[in-house]
Amino acid sequence: MSLLAGHPWFELTVLTSRRGAGLRYGEAVRWVLDTPLPQEAADIELSPTKPEAVREAELVFVALPSEAAAGIEVELAKMGKVVVSNASIYRLDSDVPLLNPEVNWDHIKLLDVQRRLRGWRGALLKVPNCTTSILTLSLKPLADLAGLESVTAVTMQSISGAGFSGVPGYMITDNIVPFIEGEEEKVSRETLKIMASLGPEGLREPEMLVTATTTRVPVLDGHLEVVYASYRRDVELQEVIDSWTSWRSTPQELSLPTAPEAPVVYVKERDRPQPRLDRMAGRGMSVVVGRAEKPFKGKKLLRYVVLGHNTIRGAAGNGVLIAELYYKLYEPSV
Amino acid sequence: MSLLAGHPWFELTVLTSRRGAGLRYGEAVRWVLDTPLPQEAADIELSPTKPEAVREAELVFVALPSEAAAGIEVELAKMGKVVVSNASIYRLDSDVPLLNPEVNWDHIKLLDVQRRLRGWRGALLKVPNCTTSILTLSLKPLADLAGLESVTAVTMQSISGAGFSGVPGYMITDNIVPFIEGEEEKVSRETLKIMASLGPEGLREPEMLVTATTTRVPVLDGHLEVVYASYRRDVELQEVIDSWTSWRSTPQELSLPTAPEAPVVYVKERDRPQPRLDRMAGRGMSVVVGRAEKPFKGKKLLRYVVLGHNTIRGAAGNGVLIAELYYKLYEPSV
Amino acid sequence: MSLLAGHPWFELTVLTSRRGAGLRYGEAVRWVLDTPLPQEAADIELSPTKPEAVREAELVFVALPSEAAAGIEVELAKMGKVVVSNASIYRLDSDVPLLNPEVNWDHIKLLDVQRRLRGWRGALLKVPNCTTSILTLSLKPLADLAGLESVTAVTMQSISGAGFSGVPGYMITDNIVPFIEGEEEKVSRETLKIMASLGPEGLREPEMLVTATTTRVPVLDGHLEVVYASYRRDVELQEVIDSWTSWRSTPQELSLPTAPEAPVVYVKERDRPQPRLDRMAGRGMSVVVGRAEKPFKGKKLLRYVVLGHNTIRGAAGNGVLIAELYYKLYEPSV
Amino acid sequence: MSLLAGHPWFELTVLTSRRGAGLRYGEAVRWVLDTPLPQEAADIELSPTKPEAVREAELVFVALPSEAAAGIEVELAKMGKVVVSNASIYRLDSDVPLLNPEVNWDHIKLLDVQRRLRGWRGALLKVPNCTTSILTLSLKPLADLAGLESVTAVTMQSISGAGFSGVPGYMITDNIVPFIEGEEEKVSRETLKIMASLGPEGLREPEMLVTATTTRVPVLDGHLEVVYASYRRDVELQEVIDSWTSWRSTPQELSLPTAPEAPVVYVKERDRPQPRLDRMAGRGMSVVVGRAEKPFKGKKLLRYVVLGHNTIRGAAGNGVLIAELYYKLYEPSV
Repeated sequence: MSLLAGHPWFELTVLTSRRGAGLRYGEAVRWVLDTPLPQEAADIELSPTKPEAVREAELVFVALPSEAAAGIEVELAKMGKVVVSNASIYRLDSDVPLLNPEVNWDHIKLLDVQRRLRGWRGALLKVPNCTTSILTLSLKPLADLAGLESVTAVTMQSISGAGFSGVPGYMITDNIVPFIEGEEEKVSRETLKIMASLGPEGLREPEMLVTATTTRVPVLDGHLEVVYASYRRDVELQEVIDSWTSWRSTPQELSLPTAPEAPVVYVKERDRPQPRLDRMAGRGMSVVVGRAEKPFKGKKLLRYVVLGHNTIRGAAGNGVLIAELYYKLYEPSV
Repeated sequence: MSLLAGHPWFELTVLTSRRGAGLRYGEAVRWVLDTPLPQEAADIELSPTKPEAVREAELVFVALPSEAAAGIEVELAKMGKVVVSNASIYRLDSDVPLLNPEVNWDHIKLLDVQRRLRGWRGALLKVPNCTTSILTLSLKPLADLAGLESVTAVTMQSISGAGFSGVPGYMITDNIVPFIEGEEEKVSRETLKIMASLGPEGLREPEMLVTATTTRVPVLDGHLEVVYASYRRDVELQEVIDSWTSWRSTPQELSLPTAPEAPVVYVKERDRPQPRLDRMAGRGMSVVVGRAEKPFKGKKLLRYVVLGHNTIRGAAGNGVLIAELYYKLYEPSV
Repeated sequence: MSLLAGHPWFELTVLTSRRGAGLRYGEAVRWVLDTPLPQEAADIELSPTKPEAVREAELVFVALPSEAAAGIEVELAKMGKVVVSNASIYRLDSDVPLLNPEVNWDHIKLLDVQRRLRGWRGALLKVPNCTTSILTLSLKPLADLAGLESVTAVTMQSISGAGFSGVPGYMITDNIVPFIEGEEEKVSRETLKIMASLGPEGLREPEMLVTATTTRVPVLDGHLEVVYASYRRDVELQEVIDSWTSWRSTPQELSLPTAPEAPVVYVKERDRPQPRLDRMAGRGMSVVVGRAEKPFKGKKLLRYVVLGHNTIRGAAGNGVLIAELYYKLYEPSV
Repeated sequence: MSLLAGHPWFELTVLTSRRGAGLRYGEAVRWVLDTPLPQEAADIELSPTKPEAVREAELVFVALPSEAAAGIEVELAKMGKVVVSNASIYRLDSDVPLLNPEVNWDHIKLLDVQRRLRGWRGALLKVPNCTTSILTLSLKPLADLAGLESVTAVTMQSISGAGFSGVPGYMITDNIVPFIEGEEEKVSRETLKIMASLGPEGLREPEMLVTATTTRVPVLDGHLEVVYASYRRDVELQEVIDSWTSWRSTPQELSLPTAPEAPVVYVKERDRPQPRLDRMAGRGMSVVVGRAEKPFKGKKLLRYVVLGHNTIRGAAGNGVLIAELYYKLYEPSV
């Protein structure tokens, strides 16, 4: 809501709710951010969550649980809507772009296949899992520079990743929970899809092993990931760092409104990145990398730490960036 | 469960569940204490939460939400059961003992009235609100010594007071919520009932103003309360402290198994009591008082801080102590 | 630093350090805010903390421990500097303005006395204790409306109030410490001085009892205070609320750059103010009040909760506001 | 102190302090555990921290910073004392046993070399780094079963690992610090020394790569470590789990008083081990392992999570266990 209110290209016209239809958004919402609820959003009367409700809209952002999203988002695409969805369902379908714009902006062309196969005018675009979005931003320059053989990520994920009520205070205070339902599989599988190359036959995933151990920690926002990456070509540590700091991709070149100046920020201080201090880098749209090292002399192994804002870069912000990419690159005429 | 398993007088025979009937308790429960689940409890097969389920039991502990408790506990008492209940419903009924044993053990005699009025052989006994139990333990010696005119309590209550999932981690991390639904009224009204004197006409509440501001803080267990008490007779601060430390009441005299050695422990260190360090005093059954002062010379006003374990002294432990009191004092023949 | 860099009236020219002289500020500082260190400050080379260091400056902000501040700030005032100091020493001196600008801006006239008595051209101006600044902003409209007889405050103070290293993580995690050295006395005494009226004989403190219980809680920033105030004239609750929301004082009328639009913001939601959600109200310069109630019918007693940002409104921001007041009101010719 | 008071073999006779000499321990200490200070310790008058102070003692536990420990512990060993030290200095010396008793109890025989080389009657025995003690307990059964090729550990370490004041509350609340000074090197180097085999030529370290990324998290006690281990011989996952659960070593066989029943406890629940729930396993002397998996089919790679109590198993408790091992195994005649 905060990202869409005042957006230079998009106008907030309809909000739907499965329980609060009839109320104004400002009455129905329990606003728990420390920035105020935008008046523009507060005044909108909530419609019921049904495809008809958004008949007048051209672009629809979906933030529903997978089961609820399932029918609705296909229906919307059939109606000709551009659907940008955070729901995990359909993310791995071969004709559905799973976009982390700086990394795989070109996958948007999968929409040609999608429209042909499904016979609809609309589009179904997917926002990746938060941990994966953060991870792949750090991996892409490295893959381009040195080739990737295997990736092992150990994550420390914030409470907000599970939604406002997802993690009980009694569970997480003075504690860590070393398991997040379904998360490790998502990281493995979505990373491969995002890092795939798009050819005439569709997506082709890289030959790369990806594994993750995901944990929940007592932090409000920001996922921190310790990454060990084996690469193929010998490179100096400084080359790797330069590949991160110099990286600018299509969203930057197109000056998309939500694109951060730099997708990856490298911090030299040896005790960074830290969630509370670094999560808002690039207004929450950059990831912050630090502690890059080659732990074993002569081995093509890199260790680093990457941090990103899970509800901005990892979810809502990424969704808005995807929509911007679509209108700028895929259907600029609209 | 931890308090009942291995109890010298009571045997755990039936456990009921509204959702898990058929499973063994050890399979159904998500055990979140750092002490192990007692095997004795783990092995019991859960029965559905219906009065018939406990037909063989004589004593029933009820820890249901108020709505669910409503019908069931009256039914049980009619069946002749001794019901010790944490549910807030019926707490203020004039023939229902609301017991904080050291403070108002004699109110158990209200059961005479209850049985006569309601025509049942069983008994309905209520555990007070957690904050009130802790508060009244600290007030009782003071009331006896100096008479109480008014009491103002500002509380900082732990997360466990709202149940395992009651307080989202995202709500309470780096935060305080200065409101707890229904709590301030409970403190005011239950304090007066517990501090009442029992005469031939029933309970007579003291002439005393009681008010509270209750807040939720990021602490796992233990409610801390800052108390300002206006009293009637002039007393020295040391007399007040002595009245706390020397206090032994009926549960101590009867050597009830769950009674702490001292109901009130006074700490001299000026930065105590602290929840994490003091909540387990008397195995969680004592309250710990500190920082007693007369803030204004010549005024009969006392300030102190009291801390108690909300789920032990403030709930389950108090329930067990009430049951012990019943069998020792009211129906010793059983 | 964040407040001074880019200030429309003041220019940052000298920074001193007791240990880091010779380094640039950006090298010496461990910056722990989530907003970046201003470049303007980072580039300044640190001078040793001695009066000579600031010879060229006209206005000096002092944030030293009391013992270190003692000699230096008198020296600076003798040199003709305008000294705005957070150190607690001298705060209660009768010729030293202790300023919370919206509340007692007129006390700045005490400088006439100060200059006459001490024979210096400079000025020594004091920033009050953080808890007291927040409290007195909420008390002032109430005092003007209804007269105050007594004030009891129970505070829940954030970790940053003790400085970056002041509260060990092991002390405060899952805990509350119900004592802060010297704080309760400061609240009592500084509140009376700030609420005093300035007459020809100097400050005259109100006939009012003020007492506080101050505690430390696991919150990063923002002090929350539960206040019970006895007042003299009968007023409706709504009048009190209106007196807060409509209040604009001299800093607002003078449009001082750091003055918030409203010194007091009233929130209707019954579970607010909350530190994490409300501490940045008015860019950290407003206090947020909620939960106002008259707990006892017919008694002139008010209960409310007030929250303020302790390091902005309670310290650095207040200091900048005091300096602005001085240049606008007391020596506008400069 | 808690572990030594009431110890069946050792008697607490002397306590020294660098600042509090002359006071009784109970007066000097700021006791921050939730178990009471043992009276036996409280009553002892503190001596100055000098070798002479412990002239009457035979066994000396050293918990000094490395610089302070340096001279003193050699002096003590020369005086004939059995010195068990937590200080990191000398840990890697080739004639100093670095003991994690279940893992490398036999290294105590290095004392023969130590006494011969240094010509003293005493003994210098070292407690390993906390993270390493926990890690190596989990590695030893695996190394015996399958042979280890490389080990990668990502740790989430509790606040108490840095001492009471080591981690400011403002640094760690809602945050993670992905760096701990010197820790990663200690894990690499001490693991190799502990896992070494002792032959006639002294210790021989295994051919194994060990690397670690160590982070600080907002948890009071308990270090959690995510471990990826490449092994040499093909084994089933269940064999690995069995090797942990069935493991009993010399401390268990000798029934040393502080030895846990099982050095490694395996938990099947997929969201365990958790620091708050599992750190006290085996009275803080067991480590708890969970989430064992082979992430890639056909690869000899194991992933698991291990948790241990850093100040008990990782420090003080291990020290006491080492002392017990010494008296039972090395100088049983004493």
